[in-house]
Parts: sequence; structure tokens; C-alpha cells
Amino acid sequence: MRHTLAVLVQNKAGVLARVAGLFSRRGFNIESISVGTTEMPGISRMTLVAQGDDDQMEQLTKQLHKLIDVLKISDITHDQAVERELALIKVNAEPSSRAEVLQVVDIFRGKVVDVGDRSVIVEVTGDTEKVEAMIQLMRPYGIKELVRTGTVSMVRGTRSMGQAAD
Amino acid sequence: MRHTLAVLVQNKAGVLARVAGLFSRRGFNIESISVGTTEMPGISRMTLVAQGDDDQMEQLTKQLHKLIDVLKISDITHDQAVERELALIKVNAEPSSRAEVLQVVDIFRGKVVDVGDRSVIVEVTGDTEKVEAMIQLMRPYGIKELVRTGTVSMVRGTRSMGQAAD
Repeated sequence: MRHTLAVLVQNKAGVLARVAGLFSRRGFNIESISVGTTEMPGISRMTLVAQGDDDQMEQLTKQLHKLIDVLKISDITHDQAVERELALIKVNAEPSSRAEVLQVVDIFRGKVVDVGDRSVIVEVTGDTEKVEAMIQLMRPYGIKELVRTGTVSMVRGTRSMGQAAD
Repeated sequence: MRHTLAVLVQNKAGVLARVAGLFSRRGFNIESISVGTTEMPGISRMTLVAQGDDDQMEQLTKQLHKLIDVLKISDITHDQAVERELALIKVNAEPSSRAEVLQVVDIFRGKVVDVGDRSVIVEVTGDTEKVEAMIQLMRPYGIKELVRTGTVSMVRGTRSMGQAAD
């Protein structure tokens, strides 16, 4: 099944290589990864999505804990969490089809962020299913380019991951 | 200066480890990275943001080209591009301060995606400067948790990165 790990790390050169290397050596393909800064200076948060059963993921989590500069790991697969990603889609939009394309954008509450002669760039955010659905509906018009951030995820309610580390 | 690289890779275990390892060995700290699938089956796109001068980045790009499963690299730092990231911010929102918090969310066209007893989770998208500005305005209320996707970037106009690879 699809697992989501939230990992707090020191923001230092090499930590991403160590984490990615561990997944690679164990033959896990990372479906998506995103890394950004947090509310705590010098600390970054990675969100990793990978396929594996619960036992495999527990083993992997134990190995991750041993890596230098890895501070805290939460497997939030089974938690109530908000999951979001962002995609930019460059889609063909000839004058004749533009109105149709814009209608799909509206339905998904997307945003047109660039307009060219024969294409537009659309921004869409949501969970993976919503982003996939939008991409499927855009495909018939001709997707010229697509970039996705990968998923970020946050447990609902007041508890925070930083506090739990105390 | 801050460079943005768009890198097309085969979606295989190990490629992220090789790319991250190259940055690490050369002492580059990756400010943000995001990896997601593309419109082309089996091909993922990484967006890497790192500090370095133009010469250093050119050297790094040459080394990246030599890695297995790396298909194409564009340094889009100097291009006209749309740059976006997404952040989820869990911020304290006691009944007494909730109205103020929601006002800030409105100003930035953010979205409240979860409401707890004493906190809310806010989603915001934009370029790095906008996301930073939102975080600064939320800070006085107390940020409990913050996760960012890292930046994705796409060159404006009709040309696409996949086509340029042909």
C-alpha cells in the first residue's frame, strides 16, 4: 500500500542523499518527495510517498532513524491528515478550444497563470486523486508540459509534529 | 545566486539518490526539491533550487548529464517562468483571534482546509515571496506546524521541455 512519511531533518548538504540512498539500496522507489523549510530555523521537512507493506515501512523507518541529521519520522499513512499537491499544466488552447479548456479549469477551481498564443498554463491544487482527474480531463486537448510538486501531508487537529518531538 | 533546475529523469529507484549525491559531494545544499510524475509515462520531473554562481551551476549541470537515468536538464533561472509552491500552515486560532487569522488568509487568497478547537490548517500557494510573506504574518499567532512542497517552475509560452528534448 501507499505510505506517507513525514521526516524532520537538519537542513544540511548530504541529508537528502543519505535518505534517498537508503530507499534506493532497499529497492524502494519513491513515488513523490518534497522538501521545504519549516517553522523551526535550520530544520527542513520531507514528505515521502512510497509503496510498501506495514512491516517493510517499519523496518525502513528504523533505518531512517539511524541516519545523521534525521530528527524525527512519522508514518502518517493511517492518520487523519490533509494531503495536498500542486501541479502546473501547459495545455494546448487554440482559440477554438480555449473556452472548453477554461470551463474544465473552472470546475476544478484551477487558476490560469499564463496565456500564450496557442497554450495556457493552469495551476491546480488538491489531493492526488483530484490532480489526476484534472490531468485526465486536460489530456484530450494535448498536454505540452506537466510539473507536480509531490504530496505534502499534515495531521488534522491541534497536535504538531515538532511538539511531539520534544 | 539562486538557481532553478528542471530535470527530466527515468522514474526508477536510485535516480534521486544519484542526483542528491552529486549535489552533496560538491558541497551544494539543495534549498528545495520536488519530484513528481509528468505527461510522459515512466518519466519524472525534478525541480531543484540551489545557491551557486553561473559557472558552478554549469559544471554541476554537465556532471548531472552524465548520470544514469537523467534525460534532460534545463537551467531556467534566467527564463521567463511561472514559479509556484504550496504550503500547509497549522496556526493557533483561539476563538478570540480566529477572525483576525481568517482575515490574513483572505488577503492572501488562502484556504482553510481544517478547523480544530484551537487551531486551523491553512493552504496557500504562490511564489516563494508570497508564501514567505504569509508565514511572516501568521507567526505572531503561533505557527504550530509548517510543511512546504518546494518550488516548481515552468517556462512561459508554448514551447515545452519534453519537445525540446527531441
